[in-house]
Amino acid sequence: MVLKGKMVIGQSGGPTSVINQSLVGAIIEARQHGEITGILGAHHGIAGIMNEDFIDLTTQSDEELERVANTPAAGLGSVRLKPGKAECERVFEVFKKHDVRFFFYIGGNDSAETAHIIAEMAREANYDFCTVHIPKTIDNDLRVTDHCPGFASAARFVALAFIGDDRDNAALSGIKINVVMGRDAGFLTAASALARQAEGDGPHLIYVPERAFDVARFQSDVKAVVAKYGRCVVAVSEGITDADGHPVMTSGERDSHGNLQLSGTGALGDFLSTKVKEAYAGESVRVRADTFGYLQRSFPTVVSEVDASEARMVGAFGVSQAVATGEPGSVAIRRLSSVPYKSECFMTPLSTVAREATSLKDEYINAESNDVTEAWLDYVRPLVGDLPKIGRLF
Amino acid sequence: MVLKGKMVIGQSGGPTSVINQSLVGAIIEARQHGEITGILGAHHGIAGIMNEDFIDLTTQSDEELERVANTPAAGLGSVRLKPGKAECERVFEVFKKHDVRFFFYIGGNDSAETAHIIAEMAREANYDFCTVHIPKTIDNDLRVTDHCPGFASAARFVALAFIGDDRDNAALSGIKINVVMGRDAGFLTAASALARQAEGDGPHLIYVPERAFDVARFQSDVKAVVAKYGRCVVAVSEGITDADGHPVMTSGERDSHGNLQLSGTGALGDFLSTKVKEAYAGESVRVRADTFGYLQRSFPTVVSEVDASEARMVGAFGVSQAVATGEPGSVAIRRLSSVPYKSECFMTPLSTVAREATSLKDEYINAESNDVTEAWLDYVRPLVGDLPKIGRLF
Repeated sequence: MVLKGKMVIGQSGGPTSVINQSLVGAIIEARQHGEITGILGAHHGIAGIMNEDFIDLTTQSDEELERVANTPAAGLGSVRLKPGKAECERVFEVFKKHDVRFFFYIGGNDSAETAHIIAEMAREANYDFCTVHIPKTIDNDLRVTDHCPGFASAARFVALAFIGDDRDNAALSGIKINVVMGRDAGFLTAASALARQAEGDGPHLIYVPERAFDVARFQSDVKAVVAKYGRCVVAVSEGITDADGHPVMTSGERDSHGNLQLSGTGALGDFLSTKVKEAYAGESVRVRADTFGYLQRSFPTVVSEVDASEARMVGAFGVSQAVATGEPGSVAIRRLSSVPYKSECFMTPLSTVAREATSLKDEYINAESNDVTEAWLDYVRPLVGDLPKIGRLF
Repeated sequence: MVLKGKMVIGQSGGPTSVINQSLVGAIIEARQHGEITGILGAHHGIAGIMNEDFIDLTTQSDEELERVANTPAAGLGSVRLKPGKAECERVFEVFKKHDVRFFFYIGGNDSAETAHIIAEMAREANYDFCTVHIPKTIDNDLRVTDHCPGFASAARFVALAFIGDDRDNAALSGIKINVVMGRDAGFLTAASALARQAEGDGPHLIYVPERAFDVARFQSDVKAVVAKYGRCVVAVSEGITDADGHPVMTSGERDSHGNLQLSGTGALGDFLSTKVKEAYAGESVRVRADTFGYLQRSFPTVVSEVDASEARMVGAFGVSQAVATGEPGSVAIRRLSSVPYKSECFMTPLSTVAREATSLKDEYINAESNDVTEAWLDYVRPLVGDLPKIGRLF
């Protein structure tokens, strides 16, 4: 089905370092199609659409668009809003009013769900309309796709941070705990393993939310590493839970999705520091914790080249497919080879991506649940790209 | 006085991203002087010297040295040890035993003090010997020198972090507090102001330890910014104190210098978050805090070019001066011009750098004690270098 009319594009959820690459990829592609008669940016996603708060995206220079593509965080503004039926109806009403025939929503599984509901509504109303979800999340937890744009740049930040912090820890020995983003999926925390370049390099222990976290096990793991190397660097996901599924430590605040706040607080790191000190009761140990926080998803200049180019690609592909077929769907990435790295885009039904998320495969986590496997490193290395080689004097 | 014999070089205190540039600069320079008959690296600074734990620095390839120069953190290992008289005597005894005639100590004001004591001891014993202190500190708090190697790279990390985090905050509005390293001096926190590129960009408030921190003032400052921009990004030094000089929040732990532990904990950020939430009692506000932590001094690839080249320069200059004059001293940097940026090295007596540190000049802090001045930006901008320009769609 060939459609003709305006398009709306929006960004949703936690921003990434390359979400603007997807936006710019979509804008540049859209400008090449006569079927798209206007390009409207939704200011703060679904919230902007409901308020008819649009940004005209037809006039920016190529130079400014390239600057936007290389600027972290959502250039249109983002939103954390899972709209209900009434809100989706309002969105659909606005679309009809403005003769919008294409809707591109850049986000995670919640955004895919929103896109899916709106697509279903249009179908029921016999309104000729195409919704495409463009994937984005540093968590890498979308189904179907091999990986998510946004993840590899955040993973690169984490890997670089651990390279430097492990050298810092080697210079002034102690126990160092680094809390990495990831509520339900440990992909980003697992990427810390890329920092190791020689025997003895940290992180020495990696804990992900896919496995129950046991404080006593953690304490004995740390002591074993310190006994071997005289120091210990730990990577831990912010979302680790105990055997009953309760978060190990949270600030107690809930966001608009009803999720507990995990980021933007040092509480988990400080809690684990205390537990390590308790394990060394009486002995003097240097224990420090850092929570990498929002820098992981927003730090300028730390970008994976593969990630930046794929983020651009999924934006452009979503638009070209919508124009060519008029079919709703979600853009996904298929890995063609790891060495050399090659990938391509394909479309998958919205229902296969919406709602449920995915997490680290069992084969990526070691039997002791305190490290990752070689299979994980083979998967993640080509996405993150080459890392600086550590120089050593002894 | 021309000396001939071995040299010992060591690194001390908190590592930086470019402290290995100084080390490599000194090694390469030393290899060119026949007066230096051997190059010994002290493993973990003064502690290594006392244990005669040396690393031979005469055999590494140029290629490996360049890799070391570009690797963050102290390649020889560092130490936090302010040696007393007995320990300095042990050091001096080891130097005599190994026919060490040159001692280069890369560190801050405590390291300058150590170098000073050892130099005095050698003079009293009529032992022909030259001690040179090579400046290093992310805090930028050494006297005499225009600025300290290590500072500008950490400042670049802070500026980039605020550029990205401010975009993240603009995309998902709220109040964001970022805690920056700096116990007594606010230089690094003040560098966050470089992130601003347009009216309304954060950080909107900057608090440094040079001014007493008042919680009520902070609360009203934040509310005023939110009223104006709908959001607020705050930069705050980890070492802020109240009007009585008490740290606003610490973990209570003291290091071997007797200083309270400020880094490696999220306590201050979490405390300030709570105070902001209290100020909005009853209203729903999104408040987050990140503590940048050790990444500021150790993140690979985030290096100021001026800093890297000056760090190399101070190492080489210290060695060439020691060989040429045999006079003890501390290397300092003189700024010749800001635009274009030019600098040169000179020697200053150890006593002028040892012990006491310096802090932000009054003219760099605004009258309200919640921001920096244009004079500060003129001082710091050339050191940090060009920053990526933010792309904007509206």
